[in-house]
Amino acid sequence: MKYLRIGQPGYETPVALHEGKYYDLSGPIGDIDGEFLARGGISTVAGFPEIDVAGQRIAPPIAKPNAIVCIGMNYAAHCAESGAEPPAEPVVFYKHPNTIVGPNDDVQIPRSSVKTDWEVELGVVIGKSASYLESEEAALDVIAGFVVANDLSEREFQIERSGGQFSKGKACPTFTPLGPWLATPDEIADVQGLRLWSKVNGEPRQDSSSKDMIFSVAKIIHHMSQFMAFDAGDLLLTGTPEGVALSGRFPYLKAGDVVEVGIEGLGSTKNPAVQA
Amino acid sequence: MKYLRIGQPGYETPVALHEGKYYDLSGPIGDIDGEFLARGGISTVAGFPEIDVAGQRIAPPIAKPNAIVCIGMNYAAHCAESGAEPPAEPVVFYKHPNTIVGPNDDVQIPRSSVKTDWEVELGVVIGKSASYLESEEAALDVIAGFVVANDLSEREFQIERSGGQFSKGKACPTFTPLGPWLATPDEIADVQGLRLWSKVNGEPRQDSSSKDMIFSVAKIIHHMSQFMAFDAGDLLLTGTPEGVALSGRFPYLKAGDVVEVGIEGLGSTKNPAVQA
Repeated sequence: MKYLRIGQPGYETPVALHEGKYYDLSGPIGDIDGEFLARGGISTVAGFPEIDVAGQRIAPPIAKPNAIVCIGMNYAAHCAESGAEPPAEPVVFYKHPNTIVGPNDDVQIPRSSVKTDWEVELGVVIGKSASYLESEEAALDVIAGFVVANDLSEREFQIERSGGQFSKGKACPTFTPLGPWLATPDEIADVQGLRLWSKVNGEPRQDSSSKDMIFSVAKIIHHMSQFMAFDAGDLLLTGTPEGVALSGRFPYLKAGDVVEVGIEGLGSTKNPAVQA
Repeated sequence: MKYLRIGQPGYETPVALHEGKYYDLSGPIGDIDGEFLARGGISTVAGFPEIDVAGQRIAPPIAKPNAIVCIGMNYAAHCAESGAEPPAEPVVFYKHPNTIVGPNDDVQIPRSSVKTDWEVELGVVIGKSASYLESEEAALDVIAGFVVANDLSEREFQIERSGGQFSKGKACPTFTPLGPWLATPDEIADVQGLRLWSKVNGEPRQDSSSKDMIFSVAKIIHHMSQFMAFDAGDLLLTGTPEGVALSGRFPYLKAGDVVEVGIEGLGSTKNPAVQA
């Protein structure tokens, strides 16, 4: 099953996409959120009316999460372009949950920013509470679905003005475009074999595979559950591959640019950049 | 006005404490949350029935926040005991919002932890959306109230197993005791002149004043609003003074210990430590 949310901010309708048709889940389903996902979502679209979504805003496919938990430095080639050694264990930081926007919404270049960068990431939405998981198999069992995310990052804020703590350059308004849809695990044959890419103004930037992750999705969830409790509805971002502006190979984003990120099976985002 | 929440987890009653009497706000007031605070709270207890709170659990005085935004290294003597230079600008990291517990609830020593530490902190609860604030005066205007917090920290997780990102040792379950009450700004004569202290098993640990902050509350909110948008209901923790176990002067917490933190005018927490 694929879940979407359609409509203006604050008035989103929960929608299922199944075999090319869209179904209106509103009424029985309040929202695509932790509570809905913890109940297991829906197993069939039978009984839900079809809905025409043409011309409507595609919202982030999940309601505002309790937390956005991010893994940094999870692809060796990105560590190298960032001037860092690959980590021995998963590195974690958080983004404010109010940073999520839809796959085609404007993204804001922060005031005084000169180093706004893109990062395509495989997003994992958690479907049940998880603490001190016993195995990587148990970790896979808490996944509600997958989503493509752009983990926008202001590098001066993140690195030069942060005292070393990444979150300062990660939580600017609109810095987490998501979507268009949340795909349940049965839709994704091999989560560690997905192509992921980004483009700016149509020109290629990142182009890698989730097989290059240093720590797999299962390993991250199992490991992090020893250090925190995941809640249903939490969004976990799993790191970005090489090909960002921080490498020095590409210019940073400016107002007027259009930034795209995509993952095989999860669709893509395409966000115009505007000045905040 | 002082706000509290009384009752078992998930069944808390919102309460006002005014001139030594407790008033039941339930019914008209759903919870002490961002929505309630954004409406300005209540200006009078007239019309609310008195309530007997004796013997009941005191819950965290705010519902689960959208985000817990933490400022690190904000007291010079704590920087020194941590082996760090005082920062040139506020340093920020986040804790998972699911870490909050009440002022007398058990706190958990994480499995495999050997360095669980305490940190008394002045907590600021945000009362309205705030982005790109123009001045420190404007920053003071977005404050809904103040609360004492214990920013529990596992130093091995935070420093040795984190790749340098603090959040790994900050978001373990139960790591943010809060309360007993949220005090509105009119209750606090000088937020930069408050004594704050901690004790373990009744023995003194930290004992400092909020006048020793490197960056004042107003400066932090004004500064951070250039890098993020605050939401009503967000909890901002403003850093801890010297006197933590990381200094090497005191042993770390172990199961069976009782840890207390307090701030003048904001009451105190007293949490037994148990093994997770």
